[in-house]
Amino acid sequence: MTFRPIITLLTDFGLRDSYVAEMKAVILSICPEANIIDISHEVRKYDVRMGAYLLARASRYFPKGTIHVAIVDPGVGSERRAIIVESERAFYVGPDNGILMMAAEMDGIKHIYQITNKKYMLQTTSRTFHGRDIFSPTAAHLARGVPPSEFGPEIKDPTKPSYTKPKTTNKTIEGEVIHIDDFGNIITNITTKNLQEIGITEGDTINVKIGEKTMKLKLCKSYAEVPPNQPLTIIGSGETLEISINQGNAAKTLQIDIGCNVILWKN
Amino acid sequence: MTFRPIITLLTDFGLRDSYVAEMKAVILSICPEANIIDISHEVRKYDVRMGAYLLARASRYFPKGTIHVAIVDPGVGSERRAIIVESERAFYVGPDNGILMMAAEMDGIKHIYQITNKKYMLQTTSRTFHGRDIFSPTAAHLARGVPPSEFGPEIKDPTKPSYTKPKTTNKTIEGEVIHIDDFGNIITNITTKNLQEIGITEGDTINVKIGEKTMKLKLCKSYAEVPPNQPLTIIGSGETLEISINQGNAAKTLQIDIGCNVILWKN
Amino acid sequence: MTFRPIITLLTDFGLRDSYVAEMKAVILSICPEANIIDISHEVRKYDVRMGAYLLARASRYFPKGTIHVAIVDPGVGSERRAIIVESERAFYVGPDNGILMMAAEMDGIKHIYQITNKKYMLQTTSRTFHGRDIFSPTAAHLARGVPPSEFGPEIKDPTKPSYTKPKTTNKTIEGEVIHIDDFGNIITNITTKNLQEIGITEGDTINVKIGEKTMKLKLCKSYAEVPPNQPLTIIGSGETLEISINQGNAAKTLQIDIGCNVILWKN
Repeated sequence: MTFRPIITLLTDFGLRDSYVAEMKAVILSICPEANIIDISHEVRKYDVRMGAYLLARASRYFPKGTIHVAIVDPGVGSERRAIIVESERAFYVGPDNGILMMAAEMDGIKHIYQITNKKYMLQTTSRTFHGRDIFSPTAAHLARGVPPSEFGPEIKDPTKPSYTKPKTTNKTIEGEVIHIDDFGNIITNITTKNLQEIGITEGDTINVKIGEKTMKLKLCKSYAEVPPNQPLTIIGSGETLEISINQGNAAKTLQIDIGCNVILWKN
Repeated sequence: MTFRPIITLLTDFGLRDSYVAEMKAVILSICPEANIIDISHEVRKYDVRMGAYLLARASRYFPKGTIHVAIVDPGVGSERRAIIVESERAFYVGPDNGILMMAAEMDGIKHIYQITNKKYMLQTTSRTFHGRDIFSPTAAHLARGVPPSEFGPEIKDPTKPSYTKPKTTNKTIEGEVIHIDDFGNIITNITTKNLQEIGITEGDTINVKIGEKTMKLKLCKSYAEVPPNQPLTIIGSGETLEISINQGNAAKTLQIDIGCNVILWKN
Repeated sequence: MTFRPIITLLTDFGLRDSYVAEMKAVILSICPEANIIDISHEVRKYDVRMGAYLLARASRYFPKGTIHVAIVDPGVGSERRAIIVESERAFYVGPDNGILMMAAEMDGIKHIYQITNKKYMLQTTSRTFHGRDIFSPTAAHLARGVPPSEFGPEIKDPTKPSYTKPKTTNKTIEGEVIHIDDFGNIITNITTKNLQEIGITEGDTINVKIGEKTMKLKLCKSYAEVPPNQPLTIIGSGETLEISINQGNAAKTLQIDIGCNVILWKN
């Protein structure tokens, strides 16, 4: 445990309303020494997969013992379960709809508990805002040292998202776009290892078929290797291949969205 | 008083400029141990009522002794007064235009003081940014334990906003839309008690006239009780009636804005 | 040094992605007691000058010893240097492209060091995200007390931006628009001293030529001195002349953008 327990928040609530502040208020009422860090509150509404991706990217950099609350929860108030995932590095708190699992599986999962003990929820729980009424108090009580098994029974059947993995032949890789960042960088699920498998290294020119377009693009070490407004490929900071435009917005220019197919082969 | 004094900020300044950071810098210069929590900086420009609503929603969840700074201030630099409202639970700091009163009245108001003592302001106060030059130093000095009466004379005539309350006959309730949240949920001022008065309980179908439209909508326990993209009503997390679309944006779909009339009657 | 070391962050990364959270995670892993304050993450993409302006505005209000990280970095991964600027009041960490210099020059610069010592970087540094891999660890190690000279050699030739200064004749001032804030206030580089030089004081009516338009505008003490939706000039909170519309958006209404010429003369 660090100096002050860290609780992170990731939601699709936006920053305009008071929802995120209500969660922080509940956390600080229970655990005044919590250090609350926002991961993002601008996940696309109801986009569990985008939430899972951002959580998995960020969680690996936080200190051991961090408590992550992640809420993209179209099923709030229905029969979907509320869970705590205890991994080798962290605790993950949120709905059982897959949002927590990409990050937790990267860490290594130890136990999963359903949150049922009303002692650790707000006295009145609303129909629509379990982030404030269940998940925030859970995180705050975890931060105070309540063992995760106190919150409810262990479960063995969490909802697991089925994320596609790239397919490699000896000449081509077929992957997909998993995220578009705020710069318009097109982030794929194709890893450095996948590239090595078909013999692609930095400096090579690659054939890239994305959507309806096929382009010859250099695998660069920096954006500045091509002139401004020119496209390139690069190993991004999440260690997968990205298609970018130097000082431009690749997704807008190429009209590419999440889920789009990407096929690569060497020149 | 908690572990570290909590100061919340609510403004219409947005997050793009350095204004919010300048306020935090001033606070931390005076009270380095302050725990500064943002409620929202995306209140619609000059919309005092939206600010008052968000502050009242959030403030009730913060620990006793929290200091709330709320600034939606079209009259900055004019003769409008700067005030501290001391309630049973908290301190509220901001302009005397009504923004603080909805929250403070819910708590119970003890005293209201005008901020006039230049000792607790920045040495130079600008024409346009009392958030940084007057309200932030006031909050920080309160957090350090300066009694509110030190800041200026007690006043008895604060500006009170006149918020409409729903009208109930024995068959109908007439209320209005008080907020649209970032999901497009249409939040009314109609309370659970109002619904009980005309005999509406969860599971009932209600006639709802909103704007030019009249719909029959179920009063649901969760969004998922209706199929995706279908409208419903639900008791929201602020404990008033909301009109929502499961996984959709009700305000956009139904073209409803704040201030719109809502009439309900039982089927 | 204050209660907890303050590290501020200013970037063009936006708040939707996990990038800012990854930086905070790295900082807290190295320096758990850091108090991390966001200045802005909504600098226009690649707009080094806007970043420099916002940093210079905000930094002067932070306590002595604050560590500022500022990253608007179109050249990431290229040969551009990473630097620490030690000023009389603060440390500035970021790329050597001018973004740090406006703020640091206002403080008075003591030393500038290139960041080359891999001991203070993340073990693997990515091609595209030096904010996380180099600048955040640098800031966190500085916060822990590592002397700036430990990070690399002193340099004497930092990249200096050439910001234009207003030109004054005995009758006119010619300046330019340096920022448009979120309210649409048109912020110029014309100072109170410039106005005094041609004998303009508050209450005067000024001739303002901006873009293709020439207007007679009052130099007001508050927005409320003119009716709603009417234009005015005012000394803004950055102590330069601003052209505003009371409760309106001047930049949109007058169709003015950053870089636009402004000429003033007395009536």
